[in-house]
Amino acid sequence: MISSASNPRMKQLAQWQSKSRERGRDGVFVAEGLKMLEEAPEALIREIYLTPETAARLQSGRTEREHALWNKASRIGFETVTEETLKKVSDTRTPQGALMVLKQPAYERKEILEAENGLYLLLEDLQDPGNLGAILRSGEGAGITGVIMTKGTVDLFNPKTVRATMGSIFRIPFCYVDSLRPVIGEMRRRNVTVYAAHLRGSSVYDQFSFRGSSAFLIGNEGKGLKKETADLADFYVKIPMEGRVESLNAAVSASLLLYEAYRQRRIFNEHSKH
Amino acid sequence: MISSASNPRMKQLAQWQSKSRERGRDGVFVAEGLKMLEEAPEALIREIYLTPETAARLQSGRTEREHALWNKASRIGFETVTEETLKKVSDTRTPQGALMVLKQPAYERKEILEAENGLYLLLEDLQDPGNLGAILRSGEGAGITGVIMTKGTVDLFNPKTVRATMGSIFRIPFCYVDSLRPVIGEMRRRNVTVYAAHLRGSSVYDQFSFRGSSAFLIGNEGKGLKKETADLADFYVKIPMEGRVESLNAAVSASLLLYEAYRQRRIFNEHSKH
Repeated sequence: MISSASNPRMKQLAQWQSKSRERGRDGVFVAEGLKMLEEAPEALIREIYLTPETAARLQSGRTEREHALWNKASRIGFETVTEETLKKVSDTRTPQGALMVLKQPAYERKEILEAENGLYLLLEDLQDPGNLGAILRSGEGAGITGVIMTKGTVDLFNPKTVRATMGSIFRIPFCYVDSLRPVIGEMRRRNVTVYAAHLRGSSVYDQFSFRGSSAFLIGNEGKGLKKETADLADFYVKIPMEGRVESLNAAVSASLLLYEAYRQRRIFNEHSKH
Repeated sequence: MISSASNPRMKQLAQWQSKSRERGRDGVFVAEGLKMLEEAPEALIREIYLTPETAARLQSGRTEREHALWNKASRIGFETVTEETLKKVSDTRTPQGALMVLKQPAYERKEILEAENGLYLLLEDLQDPGNLGAILRSGEGAGITGVIMTKGTVDLFNPKTVRATMGSIFRIPFCYVDSLRPVIGEMRRRNVTVYAAHLRGSSVYDQFSFRGSSAFLIGNEGKGLKKETADLADFYVKIPMEGRVESLNAAVSASLLLYEAYRQRRIFNEHSKH
């Protein structure tokens, strides 16, 4: 049992928690809690740390979920860590007795773009880890194909982002690119229509048909989209706002657009069935 | 000029920033940045602190906005504070050279509920300050009438929440209540239909008409709505989700429901015009 935060493995773990560069160099990230242990594909799990209390609870297997988690942790192998130590290396005050080191999933841009009737998000320099996580979560909910982000976007493997995805990080293809320009060029060749969420939009988002391959461009929380990026879009899309609101939270804007696309696709599929 | 964080006014300010109880006792809160100075109604502003750089920039009045801000700050009166001191008492790393102490706006529940064709949010025990702020912002965007929250909900005057509202905190009526039960009872008497965002919902959110007076019940991020609260709703509303997503971020769920109501109301108003 590990009982000190100065244990070399704990020290390394704390580095991976706090430093994007360390994570990138080693191609790993850290996730906390039993929900994440449940959601994580076995092939990605490198290390599992449980408090003795959590290990005992899973072993007792009182629920089917605990039983399944115990089997998973045992198959992969785990180490016990005192709760005090786990708290020290954790990003949260309540790490829920479980912490994992995982291999970062990686996807090819080509593979993401090849989907039929794709639904994409193109993110430019998003800064808030919680927003990025919530976007992946909504993205999965709306049946997104993949997320393509500029390198200026916050690290998807930031512990706050990982937590906010609620497991979608394991299921939604994504990639980071130097610039969105060539991606948008490639999308155009593949007949993906690119929409920019933009204050200058003259048509409201529910006036477009997103049933065909569609991509939504979402800009930085403070600055919005760069002009040269917005200029590459096929259409500007406006989200109407009452009162004195100038813009919505980035995760909210992205979710409204994705869910409008999903709504249209659901209705169309319903009708096609009859 | 104030140049030390141990200045009594700065010490008091730091307390107001960090402690909900201190804010409540004195009926004040703190907001940062020029955007908030711009949005804040003069009648609410108690104290303004500017760095000498910011004061000089506003005084130079190169833009119309700077000019207006200078006039506003001069009318109310402000104190200069060194940037270093402002950073120490600020909740953010970059307080943007301006900080205000404001009187907490207060609204009567009765006044909120009296609206014609109201659109309401009823929040139960929301915990994330960023979520609550984003909800107010989306709420204003969607033309909400007001927000009613349980006392277990995070303090609306938490600096993170204030920031996330982007000024909507000055414009959206709200109140805290011990329990939502009597509020829902009163809503029923006023013919407000109450919808609970709930996993058990059998109908999708866009299958309802929200053109009449409507209220959406949103539960705690982790636990959802309490059973006894959900039971009070007229309808359970489902937000459909693909993949393995079990729920969406609370601010996203609230925004999707509000914007669906707003969409229906806009379309209806468009048609009524012709």
